[in-house]
Amino acid sequence: MWTAFPGLHDQLMQVEQVIQANIKLRNKAIQNTLEALTINGGKLVRPAFLLLFATFGPQQDPPKFSKSAAAMEILHLATLIHDDVIDDSPLRRGVTTMHTHYGKRNAIYAGDYLFTVYFELINETARNAQDTHLNAISMRQILLGELDQMRFDFKTGMSVKDYLREIDGKTAALFQLSCEMGTRLSGASLTIQRRARRIGHDIGMAFQVLDDILDYTQSEATLAKPNGEDLRSETYSIPLLFAVQNYPELKTLLRQEMTPAHVAYLVHLVQTYGVADAKDLASRYTQKALAEIAQLPSGDAAEILKQITQALLIRTN
Amino acid sequence: MWTAFPGLHDQLMQVEQVIQANIKLRNKAIQNTLEALTINGGKLVRPAFLLLFATFGPQQDPPKFSKSAAAMEILHLATLIHDDVIDDSPLRRGVTTMHTHYGKRNAIYAGDYLFTVYFELINETARNAQDTHLNAISMRQILLGELDQMRFDFKTGMSVKDYLREIDGKTAALFQLSCEMGTRLSGASLTIQRRARRIGHDIGMAFQVLDDILDYTQSEATLAKPNGEDLRSETYSIPLLFAVQNYPELKTLLRQEMTPAHVAYLVHLVQTYGVADAKDLASRYTQKALAEIAQLPSGDAAEILKQITQALLIRTN
Repeated sequence: MWTAFPGLHDQLMQVEQVIQANIKLRNKAIQNTLEALTINGGKLVRPAFLLLFATFGPQQDPPKFSKSAAAMEILHLATLIHDDVIDDSPLRRGVTTMHTHYGKRNAIYAGDYLFTVYFELINETARNAQDTHLNAISMRQILLGELDQMRFDFKTGMSVKDYLREIDGKTAALFQLSCEMGTRLSGASLTIQRRARRIGHDIGMAFQVLDDILDYTQSEATLAKPNGEDLRSETYSIPLLFAVQNYPELKTLLRQEMTPAHVAYLVHLVQTYGVADAKDLASRYTQKALAEIAQLPSGDAAEILKQITQALLIRTN
Repeated sequence: MWTAFPGLHDQLMQVEQVIQANIKLRNKAIQNTLEALTINGGKLVRPAFLLLFATFGPQQDPPKFSKSAAAMEILHLATLIHDDVIDDSPLRRGVTTMHTHYGKRNAIYAGDYLFTVYFELINETARNAQDTHLNAISMRQILLGELDQMRFDFKTGMSVKDYLREIDGKTAALFQLSCEMGTRLSGASLTIQRRARRIGHDIGMAFQVLDDILDYTQSEATLAKPNGEDLRSETYSIPLLFAVQNYPELKTLLRQEMTPAHVAYLVHLVQTYGVADAKDLASRYTQKALAEIAQLPSGDAAEILKQITQALLIRTN
């Protein structure tokens, strides 16, 4: 994904080294799994946004940026590991998930441990109390997003507004934080900081909508994890919400037993009735982000931001 | 427990209010469980130590002390909730555990959420980067203690040294942090800060050894949770370690199926062969702590510290 941007690619290698250096455990089995999770296809999207936005201010401190970017990915990894325990997912990034390999005990504590690593990296890189405060409230928002998700299952139903509020917390908040932290750490103007925040938010929303689409449209091989998982775990997401709106009979079908054949049939219905509207929604968020990116000071970073924002919308895994 | 010390009791009421104020969720079901967990028999031991040690410095800021004390309890609660998911415990503090009530999904995220509340309270109360750094590395040490625990089960065995290192991380570290933070936030001398650290460590060690003893000696009604749990979850703790040393045949018996009758028999053997040595160990840590407490500037706080340190050793739940 990053090979087209050699400078960014090199910086992301630094970020990966910081991540590896901070996952040192006496328990080598867990360390190895954490390393595998980091190396295998972690796209480092959030760190990349932090690094790109860190070019907009006068205070250039690459080692600090790498650490802070690593913190974003580590927070992300922590939530992924806990998500996989919760959803009982067998695969993540093509690798057997932590809890499948080492049990939920190791997986829960490994996630907790990563929260502490995140906490420490933030303390090491924050320039002031506002920086740490922003991280603390963002982390809180992310977890509240996850907690809210629980309130909606096939029994209780969910509105589009509920969905948007949920992904605003669980996904957009971290993209928003990554972009804003880049501008803050480099001492960019307040105008650019606020713009970074909005761009991060919109990219995050588009990213999650697309993730939820891919769960219905991609094969397990491409996703490197099972598809149709949202149906099996009775999680409402936007393609299903739109499908129910466009084809109300679906609601009854959701109450039937989730045999493999029934899941396959439901996936087909969602593909037919829900995916197009969801793609429109993702596209609208992407357009909004691109309009704001166009307002950034022009240069390499703005150009790369534009390209990767477009690329994220047409990704397939 | 605190009614004998009215001043401390009042301050702990403040701490409880800070905790309640910081557990505000849209998901009311989870909020209610968190509140019940806080109100029902949370002994607030760690906050109490922070508050008592905060009397030794010249900078008196009670609202800040309450917040920081609340942070210690919240970090403790977060680890409790995750421990209960991991051990599949049905009861905690006489209340149905979070995961039993609302599933592991809610419980894992609720614990994660509490980490973020802790993180934020620390940021609000820390006087400088050293304070936050101390918290970050302590939190990391606590989680590493939990992760290390996993390496030892009935199959792999464990030495007394392994056990001590494990509880040093998972329990003593938080007592140590609570005591040290009290002296730091009040601007006490470095000598007192270091003494607070050692006292906290030794009290924490004694506390955990006693907890592990109670798992074998107390009834479910007194503990407000099932006893013999460590056996059922194949967790080595010190009474069992001493029992195996004193009665090596036990090792073979541990490999048999854990039927209720067999667990009862094993509990009996551990009571007979392991508890006395474990009590000696707890007593040695308590004596060490009391010797250091005697070196503190004399006054109400030192006297209360002495009394509660003694009381913790003879507690029954």
